[in-house]
Amino acid sequence: MKAVLITSGGMDSATLAWHYDALGYDLILVGFDYGQRHRRELEYVHAIAAQHNAETRIVQLPIRDLLHGSALTSDDVDVPDGHYAQETMKATVVPNRNAIMLSIATGIAVAENADIVATGVHAGDHFIYPDCRPAFFDPFAQAMKAGNEGFTPPGFRLEAPFITWTKADIAKHGDALGVDYATTWSCYKGGDIHCGRCGTCVERIEAFIEADVHDPTVYEDRAFALAEIGLG
Amino acid sequence: MKAVLITSGGMDSATLAWHYDALGYDLILVGFDYGQRHRRELEYVHAIAAQHNAETRIVQLPIRDLLHGSALTSDDVDVPDGHYAQETMKATVVPNRNAIMLSIATGIAVAENADIVATGVHAGDHFIYPDCRPAFFDPFAQAMKAGNEGFTPPGFRLEAPFITWTKADIAKHGDALGVDYATTWSCYKGGDIHCGRCGTCVERIEAFIEADVHDPTVYEDRAFALAEIGLG
Repeated sequence: MKAVLITSGGMDSATLAWHYDALGYDLILVGFDYGQRHRRELEYVHAIAAQHNAETRIVQLPIRDLLHGSALTSDDVDVPDGHYAQETMKATVVPNRNAIMLSIATGIAVAENADIVATGVHAGDHFIYPDCRPAFFDPFAQAMKAGNEGFTPPGFRLEAPFITWTKADIAKHGDALGVDYATTWSCYKGGDIHCGRCGTCVERIEAFIEADVHDPTVYEDRAFALAEIGLG
Repeated sequence: MKAVLITSGGMDSATLAWHYDALGYDLILVGFDYGQRHRRELEYVHAIAAQHNAETRIVQLPIRDLLHGSALTSDDVDVPDGHYAQETMKATVVPNRNAIMLSIATGIAVAENADIVATGVHAGDHFIYPDCRPAFFDPFAQAMKAGNEGFTPPGFRLEAPFITWTKADIAKHGDALGVDYATTWSCYKGGDIHCGRCGTCVERIEAFIEADVHDPTVYEDRAFALAEIGLG
């Protein structure tokens, strides 16, 4: 059995790789270079693949200028500091990103005769990112099945096993599976170490605390995140 | 009102441009360079845009090796000659192509605050291409709406106005709208002139005949197509 996993190199997608490895799937990890500031996350895709003897595909997507306006891909828009679930975090939305990634991953799965395409989206993403919600994912998964009918193995499907979980749930699950979270990258700013201030750093710190799981990450400003989540 | 149209430069997408121009939309025509043999179709995207004072976006998609195995993108697989609705034409399927194109076009539409994303798929595509069928398109359109909720104008939607039409219906509709079919390209082989032998050339010739519309195209081997459709 073969699974194609959308892999950003962060906590969720690392846990996804451990999850499907534990279930006995051969893995193909698909990373995307779409001009994101934090392109260094792709190094972690390779590192996670090495831990699972997985294949990797890095997809070059030169669509940065076409999908303009996001803080993640535009030099003109700053990455906002603060808690993930704030209105300001909408600046980090890349238009239709998950659909684009899932469509290409599904194409790769069809070419590779894989059984499953999976993504690590979770409930904490729902507030800001409409393309992480079941209202998007469920009909999308249905479309991918129908759109490749006759060209996929029996039972071919898309899965988002964490879509109703919190990020803390993922950290707990990953900890039980033995995920090495030191080999993951979250920070949207893409500096030398995690900033501790951007939405995804704050969310990462909060998840480890809520899950009561050891956080191996070195942050530039962990105190900022602790203040944001009311523990400062 | 603004519409983003998937544009291959063929009969269907040219008619689509005329259709939405007649309905009063400002147009953005999106073409894709995915390593197809018939990359020259992209010249026709620009030509059609010029006829409508439309903007164009050509998306570079270096996914040819990732979505291997199609006659359209692989030097190792020949483009089959014959009628479009034959099993052999399955060699021309590019895995999940329409979903990939529609996802990126939707991302562009969101970035451009457009009201509509449209594609010229039609009933003649249904037999070979599962990603041209309503069973794919309807849930996909629903997913695109939900996946970009809050980031699109009211009434934002995907449309496939020809999805239940034959290609002859499209030719008739386009003829009435004044489409200049000399400025369109269909042939999958991408030579200097249309070959007249590949599935899409045969289908093109058949559509003009069935619609009783003048075919301005010069073909290398029109006799082959006529024999295939029982008029030889």
